[in-house]
Amino acid sequence: MKTILFSLPGNEELTALLAKKMDAEVGKATLRKFPDGESYIRILSDVKNKCVVLVCTLHEPDEKLLPLYFLSHTAKSLGAMCTCLVAPYLAYMRQDKVFKKGEGVTSTYFGKLISGFADSMTTVDPHLHRISALGEVYDIPNKVIHAADAISEWIKDNIKNPVLIGPDSESEQWVSEVAKKAGAPFTVLQKVRHGDRDVEVSVPDVDKYKEATPVLVDDIISTARTMIETVQHLKNAGMKPPICIGIHPVFSGNAYQELLDSGVRKIVTCNTIPHPSNAIDLSDSIAKEVKTLMHNR
Amino acid sequence: MKTILFSLPGNEELTALLAKKMDAEVGKATLRKFPDGESYIRILSDVKNKCVVLVCTLHEPDEKLLPLYFLSHTAKSLGAMCTCLVAPYLAYMRQDKVFKKGEGVTSTYFGKLISGFADSMTTVDPHLHRISALGEVYDIPNKVIHAADAISEWIKDNIKNPVLIGPDSESEQWVSEVAKKAGAPFTVLQKVRHGDRDVEVSVPDVDKYKEATPVLVDDIISTARTMIETVQHLKNAGMKPPICIGIHPVFSGNAYQELLDSGVRKIVTCNTIPHPSNAIDLSDSIAKEVKTLMHNR
Repeated sequence: MKTILFSLPGNEELTALLAKKMDAEVGKATLRKFPDGESYIRILSDVKNKCVVLVCTLHEPDEKLLPLYFLSHTAKSLGAMCTCLVAPYLAYMRQDKVFKKGEGVTSTYFGKLISGFADSMTTVDPHLHRISALGEVYDIPNKVIHAADAISEWIKDNIKNPVLIGPDSESEQWVSEVAKKAGAPFTVLQKVRHGDRDVEVSVPDVDKYKEATPVLVDDIISTARTMIETVQHLKNAGMKPPICIGIHPVFSGNAYQELLDSGVRKIVTCNTIPHPSNAIDLSDSIAKEVKTLMHNR
Repeated sequence: MKTILFSLPGNEELTALLAKKMDAEVGKATLRKFPDGESYIRILSDVKNKCVVLVCTLHEPDEKLLPLYFLSHTAKSLGAMCTCLVAPYLAYMRQDKVFKKGEGVTSTYFGKLISGFADSMTTVDPHLHRISALGEVYDIPNKVIHAADAISEWIKDNIKNPVLIGPDSESEQWVSEVAKKAGAPFTVLQKVRHGDRDVEVSVPDVDKYKEATPVLVDDIISTARTMIETVQHLKNAGMKPPICIGIHPVFSGNAYQELLDSGVRKIVTCNTIPHPSNAIDLSDSIAKEVKTLMHNR
């Protein structure tokens, strides 16, 4: 079965990389807004009997949903065999249960909506809290890609004498895995509570790492509050300016500039959301997994 | 069965009017955005075993769809008997067939999506072109409210010596109906083509209406191009500055200011979309029809 990839606005670069690696065509489509704000969709390439891959990362999801939904239906109306969604960043993974009475479980509702028009879904490290597998909310074949390997590789290739830093004990498992693969040491910040407002944060073995380059790793950098705080703790402990690595550069509001200004050496992210900080390309693993998903159909 | 109305952001005024006329409660809910652009929904009122009316006009629909969809699902999860959508302006009525190969029929797709989460739909004069009834695209009980009566009433009450103007022969049926109900005369602009670019527009019986107040009526004022052009023709024919009436004040971009500046006396619209030009209140007929729809369940 032939494969054809379509980029939703903003995903052109990743779509081109994936098409090359999947030895597939990039489809042509017109997606624009009428003056009154409604979306117009027209597919210009032949999609009949082809597997259509829709590349649409889903940060700021509300305005993206309808164009994506329309494109999927239009492809089907033109005879596409299937429409496979590639959403390197997946939205609505936060509200996966009722925390306060009356709340909507938007994870489930969003998953149901996507599952209603896409035949499969591929994403990168979704923020799974209480949900143990994506299949609990996505009722379609789905695949989660892990960025840890690519991040470890990037650290090995680009940083001399790194030390990985976990901002808290929760991050230990994840940071230790990346550190192991990168062949680098790691340490996790420790909080000692002296009273209600008196919390001391210390870096264990700080003397051992005074000459090392600290590397902070997190999955999503959104408001960047945690990272900026951690950068401050490292500075107070007398460490070098750190390199901050995030999988998903969400960067809400002015967060990117604020993190840059906080005293970091560099900010590096994966290309799950197009951003100037993108430096770690995940297209190899995405292309591989999408092909496997399609093959298993 | 008890009824409770919820306003999606921006629809508070109409919601309050409807609640009063339906002798129903206005529900409390929190609808806000997280810093990363995702929507948060929480219903604070009791909706169990109640009929929930969601008031959400749908101009600039793309960003409104998910909050509306989430609110409907949240209400159901809390035990609501049904969720009835009141969308005084209904989006995606334009692309109701494939005009050019490869286009998506967004009318149908949008109708299917709404029908998937709302139990009924009430709207005001949707822009039905080739579709003869809303039921062709909306798979749920639905009701179309016509603004003609309310517009005629407004003309009778507010304009001395009016003459209704249709911009072209297509508008004759609609303009003649409003004119008849308002007890006013009407005339329709005539185009005489002398050549490819030489089109003369004339106002029949213009001498008869030199002292009258011209009243232009259209369903949607979006870019306002047609209305501005018509205003110009009336001016050229030596008529008084007209009053422009639109059912739906979509006003894309700078259209409202441009129409104001084109030499009109006044712009008047129905409250299907909140706008400073709103002067014709349709809440009576909307309240009545929503009650009937609910009663027929």
